[in-house]
Amino acid sequence: MTFSKLAIIGPGLMGGSIAMASRARNPRTGISVWVRREEALRGVQKKGIADFVSTDLEAATADADMIVFCVPIGAMPPLAEQMSRFVPAEALVTDVGSVKAPVVETLGRIFAGRAGFVGSHPMAGSEQTGIEAARADLFEGTVCIITPEKETPSRNVDRIRQFWSMLGCRTSTLPPAEHDEVVALVSHLPHLVAATLVNLVCSQNPDSLNFSGSGFRDTTRVASGSPGMWAEIFGGNRVQVKKTLLAMIEKLRQVAEFIDDEAKMRQFLGDAKNRRDDLKKEKQ
Amino acid sequence: MTFSKLAIIGPGLMGGSIAMASRARNPRTGISVWVRREEALRGVQKKGIADFVSTDLEAATADADMIVFCVPIGAMPPLAEQMSRFVPAEALVTDVGSVKAPVVETLGRIFAGRAGFVGSHPMAGSEQTGIEAARADLFEGTVCIITPEKETPSRNVDRIRQFWSMLGCRTSTLPPAEHDEVVALVSHLPHLVAATLVNLVCSQNPDSLNFSGSGFRDTTRVASGSPGMWAEIFGGNRVQVKKTLLAMIEKLRQVAEFIDDEAKMRQFLGDAKNRRDDLKKEKQ
Repeated sequence: MTFSKLAIIGPGLMGGSIAMASRARNPRTGISVWVRREEALRGVQKKGIADFVSTDLEAATADADMIVFCVPIGAMPPLAEQMSRFVPAEALVTDVGSVKAPVVETLGRIFAGRAGFVGSHPMAGSEQTGIEAARADLFEGTVCIITPEKETPSRNVDRIRQFWSMLGCRTSTLPPAEHDEVVALVSHLPHLVAATLVNLVCSQNPDSLNFSGSGFRDTTRVASGSPGMWAEIFGGNRVQVKKTLLAMIEKLRQVAEFIDDEAKMRQFLGDAKNRRDDLKKEKQ
Repeated sequence: MTFSKLAIIGPGLMGGSIAMASRARNPRTGISVWVRREEALRGVQKKGIADFVSTDLEAATADADMIVFCVPIGAMPPLAEQMSRFVPAEALVTDVGSVKAPVVETLGRIFAGRAGFVGSHPMAGSEQTGIEAARADLFEGTVCIITPEKETPSRNVDRIRQFWSMLGCRTSTLPPAEHDEVVALVSHLPHLVAATLVNLVCSQNPDSLNFSGSGFRDTTRVASGSPGMWAEIFGGNRVQVKKTLLAMIEKLRQVAEFIDDEAKMRQFLGDAKNRRDDLKKEKQ
Protein backbone atom coordinates (compact mmCIF):
# COMPACT_ATOMS: atom_id res chain seq x y z
CA MET A 1 0.00 0.00 0.00
CA THR A 2 1.86 3.05 -1.22
CA PHE A 3 0.79 6.68 -1.38
CA SER A 4 -0.80 8.09 -4.50
CA LYS A 5 0.22 11.69 -4.03
CA LEU A 6 2.86 13.15 -1.75
CA ALA A 7 2.84 16.90 -1.07
CA ILE A 8 6.08 18.37 0.26
CA ILE A 9 5.84 21.75 1.96
CA GLY A 10 9.22 23.45 1.48
CA PRO A 11 11.98 22.23 -0.86
CA GLY A 12 15.15 22.44 1.26
CA LEU A 13 17.61 19.67 2.04
CA MET A 14 14.93 17.56 3.71
CA GLY A 15 12.05 18.26 1.33
CA GLY A 16 14.26 17.78 -1.70
CA SER A 17 15.71 14.55 -0.34
CA ILE A 18 12.25 13.17 0.49
CA ALA A 19 11.16 13.89 -3.10
CA MET A 20 14.27 12.24 -4.53
CA ALA A 21 14.05 9.19 -2.26
CA SER A 22 10.36 8.75 -3.03
CA ARG A 23 10.94 9.09 -6.76
CA ALA A 24 13.77 6.54 -6.63
CA ARG A 25 11.91 3.99 -4.53
CA ASN A 26 8.22 4.54 -5.40
CA PRO A 27 8.13 5.95 -8.90
CA ARG A 28 4.34 5.66 -9.04
CA THR A 29 3.76 8.11 -6.18
CA GLY A 30 2.96 11.57 -7.54
CA ILE A 31 5.05 14.39 -6.05
CA SER A 32 3.90 17.93 -5.52
CA VAL A 33 6.07 20.62 -3.93
CA TRP A 34 5.01 23.89 -2.36
CA VAL A 35 7.57 26.70 -2.37
CA ARG A 36 7.23 30.07 -0.69
CA ARG A 37 8.99 32.19 -3.28
CA GLU A 38 8.59 32.32 -7.04
CA GLU A 39 12.39 32.16 -7.39
CA ALA A 40 12.43 28.76 -5.70
CA LEU A 41 10.16 27.28 -8.39
CA ARG A 42 12.99 27.08 -10.89
CA GLY A 43 15.33 25.32 -8.43
CA VAL A 44 12.81 22.53 -7.97
CA GLN A 45 11.98 22.33 -11.66
CA LYS A 46 15.68 22.21 -12.58
CA LYS A 47 16.26 19.38 -10.12
CA GLY A 48 13.41 17.46 -11.85
CA ILE A 49 12.13 15.93 -8.62
CA ALA A 50 8.45 16.90 -8.74
CA ASP A 51 5.43 16.48 -11.00
CA PHE A 52 4.01 19.77 -9.83
CA VAL A 53 5.50 22.84 -8.10
CA SER A 54 3.54 25.81 -6.92
CA THR A 55 3.51 28.75 -4.50
CA ASP A 56 -0.23 28.08 -4.04
CA LEU A 57 -0.68 25.91 -0.94
CA GLU A 58 -4.15 24.70 -1.90
CA ALA A 59 -3.07 23.66 -5.40
CA ALA A 60 0.05 21.97 -4.06
CA THR A 61 -1.86 19.85 -1.54
CA ALA A 62 -4.98 19.03 -3.61
CA ASP A 63 -5.69 15.27 -3.60
CA ALA A 64 -2.59 14.55 -1.50
CA ASP A 65 -2.82 11.54 0.79
CA MET A 66 0.51 12.36 2.44
CA ILE A 67 1.66 15.87 3.33
CA VAL A 68 5.07 16.59 4.86
CA PHE A 69 6.05 19.92 6.40
CA CYS A 70 9.74 20.56 5.64
CA VAL A 71 9.91 24.24 6.60
CA PRO A 72 11.52 25.66 9.76
CA ILE A 73 9.40 24.89 12.82
CA GLY A 74 8.46 28.55 13.35
CA ALA A 75 6.96 28.67 9.85
CA MET A 76 4.75 25.60 10.37
CA PRO A 77 1.80 26.96 12.43
CA PRO A 78 0.65 29.75 10.03
CA LEU A 79 0.96 27.39 7.03
CA ALA A 80 -0.94 24.68 8.92
CA GLU A 81 -3.73 27.16 9.82
CA GLN A 82 -4.08 28.10 6.19
CA MET A 83 -3.93 24.48 5.02
CA SER A 84 -6.52 23.31 7.56
CA ARG A 85 -9.23 25.13 5.57
CA PHE A 86 -8.83 22.90 2.52
CA VAL A 87 -6.73 19.87 3.54
CA PRO A 88 -8.18 16.59 2.16
CA ALA A 89 -9.83 14.80 5.12
CA GLU A 90 -8.18 11.51 4.17
CA ALA A 91 -4.69 13.06 4.13
CA LEU A 92 -2.08 12.16 6.67
CA VAL A 93 0.10 15.10 7.70
CA THR A 94 3.57 14.96 9.24
CA ASP A 95 6.58 17.24 9.69
CA VAL A 96 10.34 16.79 9.94
CA GLY A 97 11.01 19.29 12.74
CA SER A 98 13.89 18.58 15.12
CA VAL A 99 11.80 19.53 18.17
CA LYS A 100 8.55 17.66 18.70
CA ALA A 101 6.55 18.63 21.81
CA PRO A 102 5.61 22.19 20.69
CA VAL A 103 5.15 21.18 17.03
CA VAL A 104 2.96 18.17 17.81
CA GLU A 105 0.91 20.17 20.28
CA THR A 106 0.27 23.02 17.82
CA LEU A 107 -0.13 21.11 14.54
CA GLY A 108 -2.10 18.33 16.27
CA ARG A 109 -4.58 20.91 17.51
CA ILE A 110 -4.83 22.67 14.14
CA PHE A 111 -5.49 19.47 12.19
CA ALA A 112 -7.77 17.84 14.80
CA GLY A 113 -10.97 16.67 13.07
CA ARG A 114 -9.60 17.80 9.68
CA ALA A 115 -6.81 15.36 8.81
CA GLY A 116 -4.57 12.90 10.64
CA PHE A 117 -1.40 14.41 12.09
CA VAL A 118 1.62 12.48 13.45
CA GLY A 119 4.98 14.15 14.06
CA SER A 120 8.24 12.67 12.73
CA HIS A 121 11.92 13.40 13.05
CA PRO A 122 14.20 11.68 10.56
CA MET A 123 17.67 11.73 12.19
CA ALA A 124 19.29 12.48 8.88
CA GLY A 125 20.84 15.67 7.72
CA SER A 126 24.01 17.40 6.95
CA GLU A 127 25.73 20.64 7.85
CA GLN A 128 24.74 21.65 4.34
CA THR A 129 21.36 23.12 3.54
CA GLY A 130 19.16 23.74 0.52
CA ILE A 131 17.89 21.67 -2.33
CA GLU A 132 21.36 21.63 -3.93
CA ALA A 133 22.50 19.34 -1.10
CA ALA A 134 19.45 17.01 -1.40
CA ARG A 135 20.20 13.32 -2.01
CA ALA A 136 18.03 10.29 -2.75
CA ASP A 137 19.97 8.24 -0.19
CA LEU A 138 19.89 10.76 2.66
CA PHE A 139 17.62 8.55 4.76
CA GLU A 140 19.19 5.18 4.08
CA GLY A 141 20.12 3.41 7.29
CA THR A 142 19.10 6.35 9.48
CA VAL A 143 16.54 6.35 12.26
CA CYS A 144 13.26 8.22 11.97
CA ILE A 145 11.62 8.89 15.32
CA ILE A 146 7.82 9.00 15.07
CA THR A 147 6.12 10.87 17.91
CA PRO A 148 2.43 9.97 18.23
CA GLU A 149 0.28 11.36 21.00
CA LYS A 150 -1.74 9.06 23.27
CA GLU A 151 -4.89 9.65 21.23
CA THR A 152 -3.26 9.18 17.79
CA PRO A 153 -5.04 6.31 15.96
CA SER A 154 -2.64 3.42 15.50
CA ARG A 155 -3.47 3.13 11.80
CA ASN A 156 -2.03 6.62 11.33
CA VAL A 157 1.13 5.64 13.17
CA ASP A 158 1.42 2.57 10.95
CA ARG A 159 1.00 4.64 7.79
CA ILE A 160 3.68 7.13 8.87
CA ARG A 161 5.99 4.27 9.77
CA GLN A 162 5.40 2.80 6.33
CA PHE A 163 6.11 6.15 4.69
CA TRP A 164 9.53 6.54 6.32
CA SER A 165 10.41 2.88 5.81
CA MET A 166 9.77 3.33 2.13
CA LEU A 167 12.32 6.16 2.09
CA GLY A 168 14.96 3.92 3.68
CA CYS A 169 14.66 4.76 7.40
CA ARG A 170 14.47 2.45 10.34
CA THR A 171 11.59 3.76 12.43
CA SER A 172 11.09 4.04 16.14
CA THR A 173 8.40 5.72 18.24
CA LEU A 174 8.73 7.98 21.28
CA PRO A 175 6.27 10.31 23.01
CA PRO A 176 7.00 13.92 21.89
CA ALA A 177 8.42 15.06 25.25
CA GLU A 178 10.68 12.03 25.49
CA HIS A 179 11.89 12.66 21.95
CA ASP A 180 12.90 16.18 22.93
CA GLU A 181 14.83 14.89 25.92
CA VAL A 182 16.69 12.34 23.80
CA VAL A 183 17.64 14.71 20.98
CA ALA A 184 18.75 17.36 23.48
CA LEU A 185 21.36 14.79 24.56
CA VAL A 186 22.47 13.24 21.27
CA SER A 187 21.98 16.14 18.89
CA HIS A 188 21.35 19.57 20.40
CA LEU A 189 24.01 19.41 23.13
CA PRO A 190 26.75 18.11 20.78
CA HIS A 191 25.91 20.95 18.37
CA LEU A 192 26.12 23.58 21.10
CA VAL A 193 29.37 22.11 22.41
CA ALA A 194 30.93 22.05 18.93
CA ALA A 195 30.00 25.69 18.27
CA THR A 196 31.32 26.69 21.69
CA LEU A 197 34.62 24.87 21.04
CA VAL A 198 35.11 26.76 17.77
CA ASN A 199 34.31 30.12 19.36
CA LEU A 200 36.47 29.41 22.41
CA VAL A 201 39.52 28.46 20.35
CA CYS A 202 39.09 31.55 18.17
CA SER A 203 38.74 33.86 21.16
CA GLN A 204 41.72 32.37 23.01
CA ASN A 205 44.17 31.91 20.15
CA PRO A 206 42.90 32.12 16.56
CA ASP A 207 46.31 31.12 15.16
CA SER A 208 46.01 27.76 16.90
CA LEU A 209 43.52 26.71 14.20
CA ASN A 210 46.47 26.51 11.81
CA PHE A 211 47.66 23.57 13.88
CA SER A 212 44.37 21.71 14.11
CA GLY A 213 44.11 18.19 12.76
CA SER A 214 41.37 15.75 11.85
CA GLY A 215 40.27 15.41 15.50
CA PHE A 216 39.32 19.07 15.75
CA ARG A 217 37.68 18.99 12.34
CA ASP A 218 35.47 16.01 13.19
CA THR A 219 34.59 17.26 16.65
CA THR A 220 33.41 20.60 15.29
CA ARG A 221 31.98 19.62 11.88
CA VAL A 222 28.36 20.21 12.94
CA ALA A 223 29.21 23.83 13.87
CA SER A 224 28.92 24.58 10.13
CA GLY A 225 25.15 23.99 10.32
CA SER A 226 22.62 26.75 9.65
CA PRO A 227 22.70 29.28 12.54
CA GLY A 228 19.07 30.30 12.01
CA MET A 229 17.77 26.74 11.97
CA TRP A 230 19.72 25.75 15.06
CA ALA A 231 18.87 28.89 17.05
CA GLU A 232 15.23 28.04 16.36
CA ILE A 233 15.74 24.42 17.46
CA PHE A 234 17.43 25.48 20.71
CA GLY A 235 14.63 27.98 21.34
CA GLY A 236 11.97 25.34 20.70
CA ASN A 237 13.66 22.87 23.03
CA ARG A 238 15.09 25.39 25.48
CA VAL A 239 14.11 23.58 28.68
CA GLN A 240 15.75 20.28 27.72
CA VAL A 241 18.75 21.92 26.04
CA LYS A 242 19.45 24.03 29.09
CA LYS A 243 19.08 21.01 31.38
CA THR A 244 21.59 18.93 29.38
CA LEU A 245 23.96 21.90 29.02
CA LEU A 246 24.02 22.40 32.79
CA ALA A 247 24.63 18.66 33.23
CA MET A 248 27.53 18.91 30.76
CA ILE A 249 29.03 21.84 32.65
CA GLU A 250 28.77 19.88 35.89
CA LYS A 251 30.42 16.82 34.31
CA LEU A 252 33.28 18.92 32.88
CA ARG A 253 33.76 20.44 36.31
CA GLN A 254 34.17 16.93 37.74
CA VAL A 255 36.69 16.13 35.00
CA ALA A 256 38.70 19.26 35.85
CA GLU A 257 39.04 17.86 39.38
CA PHE A 258 40.86 14.71 38.30
CA ILE A 259 43.05 15.98 35.47
CA ASP A 260 46.10 15.24 37.66
CA ASP A 261 44.90 11.75 38.57
CA GLU A 262 46.13 9.58 35.72
CA ALA A 263 44.46 6.38 36.97
CA LYS A 264 41.07 8.04 37.33
CA MET A 265 41.47 9.77 33.96
CA ARG A 266 42.35 6.47 32.30
CA GLN A 267 39.19 4.93 33.77
CA PHE A 268 37.06 7.84 32.57
CA LEU A 269 38.52 7.73 29.06
CA GLY A 270 38.24 3.93 29.03
CA ASP A 271 34.51 4.12 29.80
CA ALA A 272 34.05 6.63 26.99
CA LYS A 273 36.06 4.50 24.56
CA ASN A 274 34.08 1.33 25.32
CA ARG A 275 30.78 3.12 24.85
CA ARG A 276 31.90 4.88 21.70
CA ASP A 277 33.33 1.65 20.25
CA ASP A 278 29.96 -0.07 20.83
CA LEU A 279 28.28 2.67 18.83
CA LYS A 280 30.80 2.18 16.02
CA LYS A 281 30.07 -1.52 15.86
CA GLU A 282 26.34 -0.88 15.60
CA LYS A 283 26.29 2.02 13.19
CA GLN A 284 29.35 2.27 10.99
CA MET B 1 70.43 15.49 1.33
CA THR B 2 68.55 12.50 2.67
CA PHE B 3 69.25 10.35 5.70
CA SER B 4 71.30 7.20 5.36
CA LYS B 5 69.82 5.34 8.32
CA LEU B 6 66.65 6.03 10.23
CA ALA B 7 66.15 4.36 13.63
CA ILE B 8 62.56 4.20 14.89
CA ILE B 9 62.09 3.60 18.61
CA GLY B 10 58.75 1.86 19.03
CA PRO B 11 56.67 0.42 16.17
CA GLY B 12 53.12 1.64 16.88
CA LEU B 13 50.84 3.62 14.61
CA MET B 14 53.33 6.50 14.41
CA GLY B 15 56.54 4.49 14.21
CA GLY B 16 55.06 2.11 11.66
CA SER B 17 53.70 4.97 9.54
CA ILE B 18 57.05 6.80 9.61
CA ALA B 19 58.77 3.63 8.38
CA MET B 20 56.20 3.12 5.62
CA ALA B 21 56.26 6.78 4.52
CA SER B 22 60.07 6.80 4.47
CA ARG B 23 60.22 3.56 2.52
CA ALA B 24 57.71 4.87 -0.02
CA ARG B 25 59.34 8.25 -0.51
CA ASN B 26 63.04 7.62 0.19
CA PRO B 27 63.69 3.99 -0.64
CA ARG B 28 67.47 4.45 -0.17
CA THR B 29 67.19 5.37 3.52
CA GLY B 30 67.89 2.32 5.69
CA ILE B 31 65.26 1.61 8.35
CA SER B 32 65.93 0.07 11.73
CA VAL B 33 63.22 -0.48 14.33
CA TRP B 34 63.59 -1.04 18.07
CA VAL B 35 60.81 -2.99 19.77
CA ARG B 36 60.44 -3.58 23.48
CA ARG B 37 59.07 -7.10 23.36
CA GLU B 38 60.22 -10.16 21.43
CA GLU B 39 56.61 -10.76 20.33
CA ALA B 40 56.56 -7.40 18.55
CA LEU B 41 59.49 -8.43 16.32
CA ARG B 42 57.29 -10.60 14.17
CA GLY B 43 54.67 -7.86 13.68
CA VAL B 44 57.30 -5.55 12.21
CA GLN B 45 58.90 -8.28 10.13
CA LYS B 46 55.52 -9.35 8.78
CA LYS B 47 54.71 -5.78 7.77
CA GLY B 48 58.03 -5.71 5.85
CA ILE B 49 58.77 -2.10 6.69
CA ALA B 50 62.28 -2.37 8.16
CA ASP B 51 65.72 -3.61 7.15
CA PHE B 52 66.51 -4.47 10.75
CA VAL B 53 64.39 -5.07 13.85
CA SER B 54 65.76 -5.66 17.34
CA THR B 55 64.99 -5.47 21.03
CA ASP B 56 68.60 -4.29 21.51
CA LEU B 57 68.63 -0.48 21.63
CA GLU B 58 72.34 -0.19 20.83
CA ALA B 59 72.10 -2.49 17.80
CA ALA B 60 68.97 -0.73 16.56
CA THR B 61 70.53 2.74 16.68
CA ALA B 62 74.06 1.88 15.49
CA ASP B 63 75.14 4.22 12.62
CA ALA B 64 71.78 5.98 12.61
CA ASP B 65 71.83 9.63 11.53
CA MET B 66 68.16 10.10 12.44
CA ILE B 67 66.49 8.60 15.53
CA VAL B 68 62.78 9.04 16.28
CA PHE B 69 61.18 8.20 19.62
CA CYS B 70 57.69 6.83 18.94
CA VAL B 71 56.95 5.40 22.41
CA PRO B 72 54.57 6.91 24.99
CA ILE B 73 56.09 10.04 26.53
CA GLY B 74 56.52 8.41 29.94
CA ALA B 75 58.70 5.70 28.38
CA MET B 76 61.06 8.16 26.67
CA PRO B 77 63.36 9.32 29.52
CA PRO B 78 64.68 5.88 30.61
CA LEU B 79 65.24 4.83 26.98
CA ALA B 80 66.97 8.14 26.27
CA GLU B 81 69.25 7.70 29.31
CA GLN B 82 70.25 4.27 28.09
CA MET B 83 70.71 5.47 24.51
CA SER B 84 72.83 8.45 25.55
CA ARG B 85 75.67 6.07 26.40
CA PHE B 86 76.14 4.92 22.81
CA VAL B 87 74.21 7.31 20.55
CA PRO B 88 76.23 8.30 17.45
CA ALA B 89 77.41 11.90 18.02
CA GLU B 90 76.35 12.91 14.51
CA ALA B 91 72.81 11.58 15.00
CA LEU B 92 69.84 13.87 15.19
CA VAL B 93 67.20 12.72 17.68
CA THR B 94 63.52 13.66 17.75
CA ASP B 95 60.26 12.36 19.21
CA VAL B 96 56.59 12.43 18.23
CA GLY B 97 55.11 13.11 21.68
CA SER B 98 51.89 15.12 21.87
CA VAL B 99 53.20 17.22 24.78
CA LYS B 100 56.44 19.08 24.23
CA ALA B 101 57.65 21.22 27.18
CA PRO B 102 58.44 18.33 29.58
CA VAL B 103 59.74 16.05 26.80
CA VAL B 104 62.02 18.68 25.28
CA GLU B 105 63.31 19.70 28.69
CA THR B 106 64.15 16.11 29.72
CA LEU B 107 65.40 14.68 26.42
CA GLY B 108 67.25 17.90 25.57
CA ARG B 109 69.16 17.64 28.85
CA ILE B 110 69.91 13.92 28.40
CA PHE B 111 71.28 14.32 24.86
CA ALA B 112 73.13 17.62 25.50
CA GLY B 113 76.72 17.26 24.25
CA ARG B 114 75.97 13.74 22.95
CA ALA B 115 73.67 14.19 19.92
CA GLY B 116 71.36 16.86 18.56
CA PHE B 117 67.83 16.80 19.93
CA VAL B 118 64.82 18.69 18.54
CA GLY B 119 61.23 17.84 19.54
CA SER B 120 58.49 17.30 16.93
CA HIS B 121 54.77 16.75 16.96
CA PRO B 122 53.24 15.53 13.72
CA MET B 123 49.53 16.43 13.97
CA ALA B 124 48.54 13.16 12.37
CA GLY B 125 46.94 10.18 13.96
CA SER B 126 43.84 8.19 14.27
CA GLU B 127 41.64 6.83 17.00
CA GLN B 128 43.22 3.50 16.05
CA THR B 129 46.53 2.38 17.47
CA GLY B 130 49.24 -0.16 16.71
CA ILE B 131 51.28 -1.08 13.68
CA GLU B 132 48.23 -2.71 12.05
CA ALA B 133 46.77 0.78 11.59
CA ALA B 134 50.04 2.23 10.17
CA ARG B 135 49.82 3.85 6.73
CA ALA B 136 52.38 5.30 4.32
CA ASP B 137 50.16 8.34 3.73
CA LEU B 138 49.39 9.15 7.37
CA PHE B 139 51.40 12.38 7.23
CA GLU B 140 50.36 13.66 3.84
CA GLY B 141 48.99 17.18 4.04
CA THR B 142 49.23 17.30 7.84
CA VAL B 143 51.15 19.80 9.93
CA CYS B 144 54.21 18.80 11.93
CA ILE B 145 55.06 21.25 14.68
CA ILE B 146 58.79 21.39 15.40
CA THR B 147 59.67 22.75 18.84
CA PRO B 148 63.30 23.93 19.06
CA GLU B 149 64.69 25.56 22.18
CA LYS B 150 66.42 28.93 22.02
CA GLU B 151 69.84 27.27 22.00
CA THR B 152 69.01 24.63 19.34
CA PRO B 153 71.40 25.04 16.37
CA SER B 154 69.46 26.15 13.31
CA ARG B 155 71.06 23.45 11.15
CA ASN B 156 69.41 20.85 13.38
CA VAL B 157 66.05 22.56 13.01
CA ASP B 158 66.54 22.59 9.24
CA ARG B 159 67.39 18.89 9.19
CA ILE B 160 64.29 18.00 11.24
CA ARG B 161 62.15 20.16 9.02
CA GLN B 162 63.58 18.34 6.01
CA PHE B 163 62.88 14.96 7.62
CA TRP B 164 59.18 15.69 8.14
CA SER B 165 58.79 17.35 4.77
CA MET B 166 60.14 14.20 3.17
CA LEU B 167 57.39 12.23 4.90
CA GLY B 168 54.70 14.53 3.46
CA CYS B 169 54.14 17.04 6.29
CA ARG B 170 53.96 20.79 6.15
CA THR B 171 56.21 21.97 8.96
CA SER B 172 55.91 24.83 11.37
CA THR B 173 57.91 25.80 14.46
CA LEU B 174 56.74 26.86 17.91
CA PRO B 175 58.55 27.14 21.26
CA PRO B 176 57.68 24.03 23.37
CA ALA B 177 55.50 25.89 25.89
CA GLU B 178 53.56 27.64 23.14
CA HIS B 179 53.04 24.29 21.40
CA ASP B 180 51.50 22.90 24.57
CA GLU B 181 49.14 25.85 24.83
CA VAL B 182 48.03 25.45 21.20
CA VAL B 183 47.44 21.70 21.32
CA ALA B 184 45.57 22.02 24.62
CA LEU B 185 43.07 24.11 22.65
CA VAL B 186 42.83 22.29 19.33
CA SER B 187 43.48 18.71 20.39
CA HIS B 188 43.44 17.96 24.13
CA LEU B 189 40.31 19.95 25.00
CA PRO B 190 38.26 18.55 22.07
CA HIS B 191 39.27 15.04 23.14
CA LEU B 192 38.23 15.64 26.73
CA VAL B 193 34.95 17.22 25.64
CA ALA B 194 34.16 14.31 23.31
CA ALA B 195 34.81 11.72 26.04
CA THR B 196 32.72 13.73 28.50
CA LEU B 197 29.84 13.94 26.00
CA VAL B 198 29.83 10.15 25.58
CA ASN B 199 29.93 9.53 29.31
CA LEU B 200 27.28 12.15 30.03
CA VAL B 201 24.84 10.74 27.47
CA CYS B 202 25.38 7.22 28.80
CA SER B 203 24.86 8.28 32.40
CA GLN B 204 21.74 10.33 31.64
CA ASN B 205 19.98 8.06 29.15
CA PRO B 206 21.94 5.20 27.56
CA ASP B 207 19.00 4.33 25.27
CA SER B 208 19.28 7.72 23.64
CA LEU B 209 22.38 6.46 21.79
CA ASN B 210 20.01 4.35 19.67
CA PHE B 211 18.74 7.62 18.24
CA SER B 212 22.09 9.25 17.57
CA GLY B 213 22.99 10.27 14.05
CA SER B 214 26.10 11.29 12.15
CA GLY B 215 26.45 14.51 14.16
CA PHE B 216 26.94 12.65 17.42
CA ARG B 217 29.25 10.14 15.75
CA ASP B 218 31.55 12.81 14.31
CA THR B 219 31.55 14.94 17.43
CA THR B 220 32.63 11.99 19.57
CA ARG B 221 34.84 9.99 17.18
CA VAL B 222 38.07 10.86 18.98
CA ALA B 223 36.69 9.39 22.22
CA SER B 224 37.66 5.99 20.78
CA GLY B 225 41.34 6.87 21.18
CA SER B 226 43.66 4.99 23.52
CA PRO B 227 42.73 5.80 27.17
CA GLY B 228 46.28 5.14 28.41
CA MET B 229 47.92 7.36 25.83
CA TRP B 230 45.48 10.20 26.36
CA ALA B 231 45.57 10.03 30.17
CA GLU B 232 49.34 10.38 29.86
CA ILE B 233 49.00 13.33 27.48
CA PHE B 234 46.57 15.12 29.81
CA GLY B 235 48.90 14.45 32.74
CA GLY B 236 51.91 15.77 30.81
CA ASN B 237 50.05 18.93 29.80
CA ARG B 238 47.88 19.25 32.90
CA VAL B 239 48.37 22.99 33.48
CA GLN B 240 47.32 23.99 29.97
CA VAL B 241 44.58 21.36 29.72
CA LYS B 242 43.04 22.47 32.98
CA LYS B 243 43.24 26.12 31.93
CA THR B 244 41.43 25.48 28.64
CA LEU B 245 38.89 23.20 30.31
CA LEU B 246 38.00 25.91 32.84
CA ALA B 247 37.71 28.40 29.97
CA MET B 248 35.37 25.98 28.17
CA ILE B 249 33.22 25.61 31.29
CA GLU B 250 33.00 29.39 31.60
CA LYS B 251 32.06 29.76 27.93
CA LEU B 252 29.35 27.07 28.21
CA ARG B 253 28.01 28.86 31.26
CA GLN B 254 27.69 32.04 29.19
CA VAL B 255 25.89 30.06 26.47
CA ALA B 256 23.43 28.68 29.04
CA GLU B 257 22.51 32.28 29.87
CA PHE B 258 21.29 33.13 26.36
CA ILE B 259 19.60 29.87 25.31
CA ASP B 260 16.26 31.73 25.32
CA ASP B 261 17.61 34.65 23.29
CA GLU B 262 17.23 33.52 19.69
CA ALA B 263 18.94 36.60 18.19
CA LYS B 264 21.99 36.24 20.43
CA MET B 265 22.12 32.51 19.81
CA ARG B 266 21.94 33.01 16.06
CA GLN B 267 24.86 35.45 16.30
CA PHE B 268 26.90 32.97 18.39
CA LEU B 269 26.19 30.08 16.01
CA GLY B 270 26.86 32.34 13.03
CA ASP B 271 30.32 33.23 14.38
CA ALA B 272 31.08 29.53 14.90
CA LYS B 273 29.85 28.65 11.41
CA ASN B 274 31.95 31.34 9.71
CA ARG B 275 35.08 30.26 11.55
CA ARG B 276 34.45 26.57 10.95
CA ASP B 277 33.69 27.18 7.26
CA ASP B 278 37.02 29.00 6.89
CA LEU B 279 38.79 25.96 8.31
CA LYS B 280 36.96 23.72 5.83
CA LYS B 281 38.12 25.85 2.92
CA GLU B 282 41.74 25.66 4.04
CA LYS B 283 41.96 22.04 5.01
CA GLN B 284 39.43 19.78 3.38
